[in-house]
Amino acid sequence: MNPAWTVIDGLQYSAWSREVFEQMRAGGLNAVHVTVAYHETTRDTLTRLGEWNARFETFPDLITPVFEPADIHRAKKEGKVGIIFGAQNCSPIEDEIRLVEIMRRMGLMIMQLTYNNQSLLGCGCYEAEDSGLTRYGKQVVREMNRVGMVIDMSHSAERSTLEAIEHSQQPVIISHANPSHFHPALRNKSNTVIDAIADNQGLLGFSLYPFHLKNGPQCSLEDFCDMVAWTADRMGIDRIGLGSDLCQNQPQSVLEWMRNGRWSKAMDYGEGSSANAGWPDALTWFKDSRDFPGIAAALQAKGFNDEETGKIMGGNWVGLLTRVAKPQGIKSLSVEDAA
Amino acid sequence: MNPAWTVIDGLQYSAWSREVFEQMRAGGLNAVHVTVAYHETTRDTLTRLGEWNARFETFPDLITPVFEPADIHRAKKEGKVGIIFGAQNCSPIEDEIRLVEIMRRMGLMIMQLTYNNQSLLGCGCYEAEDSGLTRYGKQVVREMNRVGMVIDMSHSAERSTLEAIEHSQQPVIISHANPSHFHPALRNKSNTVIDAIADNQGLLGFSLYPFHLKNGPQCSLEDFCDMVAWTADRMGIDRIGLGSDLCQNQPQSVLEWMRNGRWSKAMDYGEGSSANAGWPDALTWFKDSRDFPGIAAALQAKGFNDEETGKIMGGNWVGLLTRVAKPQGIKSLSVEDAA
Repeated sequence: MNPAWTVIDGLQYSAWSREVFEQMRAGGLNAVHVTVAYHETTRDTLTRLGEWNARFETFPDLITPVFEPADIHRAKKEGKVGIIFGAQNCSPIEDEIRLVEIMRRMGLMIMQLTYNNQSLLGCGCYEAEDSGLTRYGKQVVREMNRVGMVIDMSHSAERSTLEAIEHSQQPVIISHANPSHFHPALRNKSNTVIDAIADNQGLLGFSLYPFHLKNGPQCSLEDFCDMVAWTADRMGIDRIGLGSDLCQNQPQSVLEWMRNGRWSKAMDYGEGSSANAGWPDALTWFKDSRDFPGIAAALQAKGFNDEETGKIMGGNWVGLLTRVAKPQGIKSLSVEDAA
Repeated sequence: MNPAWTVIDGLQYSAWSREVFEQMRAGGLNAVHVTVAYHETTRDTLTRLGEWNARFETFPDLITPVFEPADIHRAKKEGKVGIIFGAQNCSPIEDEIRLVEIMRRMGLMIMQLTYNNQSLLGCGCYEAEDSGLTRYGKQVVREMNRVGMVIDMSHSAERSTLEAIEHSQQPVIISHANPSHFHPALRNKSNTVIDAIADNQGLLGFSLYPFHLKNGPQCSLEDFCDMVAWTADRMGIDRIGLGSDLCQNQPQSVLEWMRNGRWSKAMDYGEGSSANAGWPDALTWFKDSRDFPGIAAALQAKGFNDEETGKIMGGNWVGLLTRVAKPQGIKSLSVEDAA
């Protein structure tokens, strides 16, 4: 890959370890958007952030926190992987609007308004019906705009997604999903949604999670690149990136936590089924972060030039975060003063 | 009032004090459904329950907890006012279905699924649109049925209310609201809803909160009794009771907590307005609990016989709770063993 590129994976939730972080660096990643919360409450989220501080303390040679977009450039310069905090749900703010700013100042740069189910803000993609943004949801969208927290609608239902885009004064993203045109999974996005994201100058991060791909774990890299090309034509080359949804080395219990949280007495299988309850098999061409260069090469073989490929591999993520995620003037104890 | 009656007020949230409890007893009340949570989380609710334990310890001559319906009869026999715990929102169970049973065992006998806004379970009456019970909401309804917690839809929107009634295997109540036919407040209930409550063998508790009454604080006792008579004809004499919504001696800050919780940056005025932001003036014929005998007398003057008046004044509440709120075999430290 061109070392001038800034390479970003727009969603991972692995069982974090030295090996995983080394693979990120070996794969040329300069930053990764990591999930800190699925159903975690405010208090739980603080524990998750504390766990990240422990990792920054344990692996200072490999990872460094990204509290503002400029930290991505710092990470790259230092040869480390920048860690961007995101929540896949609004559970970290519970029912309290002032917690948006608190969480942003704790480093949370990206937050989904819903995770599959109805939340206090809007509707997830697994509910039977979507009545759009709630009263609280409308206020939270504007508060996220104000404090520079990026609105992510990856797991949201269509109407809530369109209303968030309409109500937001900043671009809105889908960090990890694919066009339904390519594969009609419940989690993928209609042309209406991807057009709205494009018009809004947001970003769609392509997912490599097999449930979101045509032919599942058998999806070919060629088919994936065709989808990227189709989407680039539709949304524009500046509106797309990657959000692999890589969940490496996670046990079944983590999948069940994602799907069931604490809300269900019966097992909910999410995108799977009782006959297919586990993690999907990995793609042959994307097993871990070391496979990003292969994706970049395939995109170039598909006809994207160096500049375009660099945008898809991370340049557009840098652009989006620079426009939306306002600096907060916060610094981790683990970031030494460069002066 | 006939001492054979069991007199119950189906909703109060006053600034609790010896004076307030003495007024309850002076007014002939044998039990009162008190609110322990508007927006309180699980943890906050435990504090509220702890505050009630302090009151039971401080005023053992006046009040006693009602953990199961039989405790109402015990309270009456002891000449005390039984205290029935209820939540006006589902915030006490947060996102965790197993907390329904936990809360029931802590003494929570009644819970609303929503309070004005969208909740994780369903929609409140102040949202623009109502998509009905959520996935989590459907599970919670059945769990409340299982553990004997009464489903209260007083502050819910219409579709969610009808879906709760449809999905519940037990009667559903409206603890405090009036028919919209009498006064078209957003919080009052359509004929569709009151008919569904009646068919479901639930209960409607008539509100004495001036915002829910024709002519507000100027509503006459005569008009109130006309409404009761109209509703008795429509729902049946066994389906109605009282739920005064008496909020005695509460400061403006409590009204603002009810209306705004933690979700709004802008002041929400609820049933009021910026020009009418405070507590409504009290009715001349209902200032505190000592005015219940006057209401009973007015109902009798309206033509209800002794048995019918007794049902309205509390008999129907006893019947509803006996049918729905299963005994939990729990006992407060403040309840001495009668054996």
